[in-house]
Amino acid sequence: MSRLVMKFGGTSVADLERIRNVASHVQREVEAGNQVAVVVSAMAGTTDQLVRWTREAAALHDAREYDSVVSAGEQITSGLLAITLQGMGIAARSWLGWQIPVRTDDVHGSARIEGIDVEDLKRRMDDGQVAVVAGFQGIAPDNRITTLGRGGSDTSAVALAAALAARCDIYTDVDGVYTTDPRIVTKARKLARISYEEMLEMASLGAKVLQTRSVEMAMINRVPLQVRSSFDPPGGPFDPQDHGFGPGTLVCGEEDIVEQQVVSGIAYSKDEAKVTLVRVEDKPGVAARIFGPLSENAINVDMIVQNVSEDGETTDLTFTVTHDDLSRAMDVIRDAGSEIGYQDLVGSTDVVKVSVIGIGMRSHAGVAAKMFQVLADKGINIQAITTSEIKISILIDAAYTELAVRALHTAYDLDSE
Amino acid sequence: MSRLVMKFGGTSVADLERIRNVASHVQREVEAGNQVAVVVSAMAGTTDQLVRWTREAAALHDAREYDSVVSAGEQITSGLLAITLQGMGIAARSWLGWQIPVRTDDVHGSARIEGIDVEDLKRRMDDGQVAVVAGFQGIAPDNRITTLGRGGSDTSAVALAAALAARCDIYTDVDGVYTTDPRIVTKARKLARISYEEMLEMASLGAKVLQTRSVEMAMINRVPLQVRSSFDPPGGPFDPQDHGFGPGTLVCGEEDIVEQQVVSGIAYSKDEAKVTLVRVEDKPGVAARIFGPLSENAINVDMIVQNVSEDGETTDLTFTVTHDDLSRAMDVIRDAGSEIGYQDLVGSTDVVKVSVIGIGMRSHAGVAAKMFQVLADKGINIQAITTSEIKISILIDAAYTELAVRALHTAYDLDSE
Repeated sequence: MSRLVMKFGGTSVADLERIRNVASHVQREVEAGNQVAVVVSAMAGTTDQLVRWTREAAALHDAREYDSVVSAGEQITSGLLAITLQGMGIAARSWLGWQIPVRTDDVHGSARIEGIDVEDLKRRMDDGQVAVVAGFQGIAPDNRITTLGRGGSDTSAVALAAALAARCDIYTDVDGVYTTDPRIVTKARKLARISYEEMLEMASLGAKVLQTRSVEMAMINRVPLQVRSSFDPPGGPFDPQDHGFGPGTLVCGEEDIVEQQVVSGIAYSKDEAKVTLVRVEDKPGVAARIFGPLSENAINVDMIVQNVSEDGETTDLTFTVTHDDLSRAMDVIRDAGSEIGYQDLVGSTDVVKVSVIGIGMRSHAGVAAKMFQVLADKGINIQAITTSEIKISILIDAAYTELAVRALHTAYDLDSE
Repeated sequence: MSRLVMKFGGTSVADLERIRNVASHVQREVEAGNQVAVVVSAMAGTTDQLVRWTREAAALHDAREYDSVVSAGEQITSGLLAITLQGMGIAARSWLGWQIPVRTDDVHGSARIEGIDVEDLKRRMDDGQVAVVAGFQGIAPDNRITTLGRGGSDTSAVALAAALAARCDIYTDVDGVYTTDPRIVTKARKLARISYEEMLEMASLGAKVLQTRSVEMAMINRVPLQVRSSFDPPGGPFDPQDHGFGPGTLVCGEEDIVEQQVVSGIAYSKDEAKVTLVRVEDKPGVAARIFGPLSENAINVDMIVQNVSEDGETTDLTFTVTHDDLSRAMDVIRDAGSEIGYQDLVGSTDVVKVSVIGIGMRSHAGVAAKMFQVLADKGINIQAITTSEIKISILIDAAYTELAVRALHTAYDLDSE
């Protein structure tokens, strides 16, 4: 008897027919002998509607009230799924965040889970009852409802799986994690397995399958995570030989991946903006005068490039931020202008970040060299570079996105036959 | 500084514009120096939608899940009103049933309030914060959400007013309690005051302004109840000379009504169905054999008429139930048929109950005699009669409803000039 957490997102519970489909997935797992907890999001569109109302009610709204309003979406879905399961003869009950409870800090709107008291839940699951858990929500120390921020239901599911020592299946509208975006590269392959570290880079670098925080939590707690599609037939193949996991992609420790590829995937992110300070004085302390104020204003800087000074006195400095932060970043730099000393300030959103990700890079040299060669062959200019142990990211002109991703996908032998 | 509970129903919070209107009503009372708690229903249509979903999810749904789903409606409104008030510069926070808590029994779907722990709430109100309370909901001993049944927000408001020793204003889509239904009698008058006892009869007998249970609770706890319209301009006249009550109808103890009319109102109910057993054996024990099984099947019988036996052996027996119970009542009688012994069983929904209500009846004779005379003058046949200390109800052919109500309204001097 193994414990399983199943998570279904908004499109998977969009209406009563979809909820019945979810119930069939749950039924299959119950009949296979699993103790099941199901984490559900709000019906697609509901959260947006509720968020819109809070904004229309007042421009500056109290995050505690926002949380109380918005969490109603998951409350509705959890009750409806419990009713649907009962209607199919499966013992089930809904659990709201405050009922379990899922204890969080008091940062309303994007709270962090501090602990889940699963004793009651476990007892009910031991008795054969399916636990239907409203995702995305918890309770703060002051007894008020919190929400975990966008995509928070993934985090709810992984945190619950960690607390229950269960594996976690994330049902979504795609059937797994791909080597790259299949909308750009038709030869993209579905990965059977991917390591937590790689998935974390993929999620941070633009792949939208899983929320970064949930992958991080799964990695720390060693929760086996499976990404699969809720749109597959619920009665679809279940292969117990495959370590109990069905189709989809398994996110797991690298020790569980036998044949490790050097490169596992190519990610890209269009949410990049570039800021260049032209002819900054090239002297000690100038970087601190630029990045200090940005940090104080909670603006995350990603890539930084400083050119070699040509005249020994001034240099150009470029950094990247997200689209949303661009105009604020420009303002901050302008305000600190007299202290920094620069000739010109240029902002641009016409860039994309392309990343090559793979745990194999640790032991294989030449991955970066191949990347630069491929881009050079296609005549694509590299504007900035950052690297980590398992990824290389480059910033290029957005117009070359598809060309670069396709060329790299082929070069690293990721194309399907 | 006096405490005030204001209650707004579904049509009064139907959208954000109506919610802003509610906030203006609250603002007026805050500025007049009141400590305010506002009880809100779900936005009009929301509860129906949620109820429909629970029914579609499974024909026989778990009442605990139903409560969890349906209570989300009031949760949304309470948060939105709190945000709106804050946006107007008024300190406010929302309270859900389980947060206060409003403790109820475990009869999910139509729970009874057992107590409200108002200490936290009071402290916040003393600090000048408006309490926005989600109506219609509470929490059962097992930590699950309960709802109070249809119209339960009225009960929430009165129970809260009782616990806070506050007066209670019920805002609705009519501007008070009328001597009768103004849609039938254009000369119907709005009553400035009405006693709890009379209001209770009016509510039970078809007037839909207030929920019966809430009036009962107000009467027991001596909560001054004012019925007024949320569609009046929020900045409308507030007359401190009028015992602190604005326009509308005050429901209060009869000692607070100086000029008591003999008859205060005429109510009618179309939700009546008549069952006649033809030629029942006229012998001891037959009534028990009829009404015993009905009671065992939880069918409420209202009026009962047994004719004088003509032949000394058989008689006709007629009783009334609600529309909804008619077919079940007929089935129950048929099942017990051999034990009862009757010749024929006839059911009909073609009847209406018309009631004359007034505390003055206690001390004035002749009210019933006048009623019978008026109906006789109009050629209306009376099929059944019941009386209490302060009301007389008669059952007549539904086709005569308007004629009877208008004639009685005039006869008891209730017409406005």
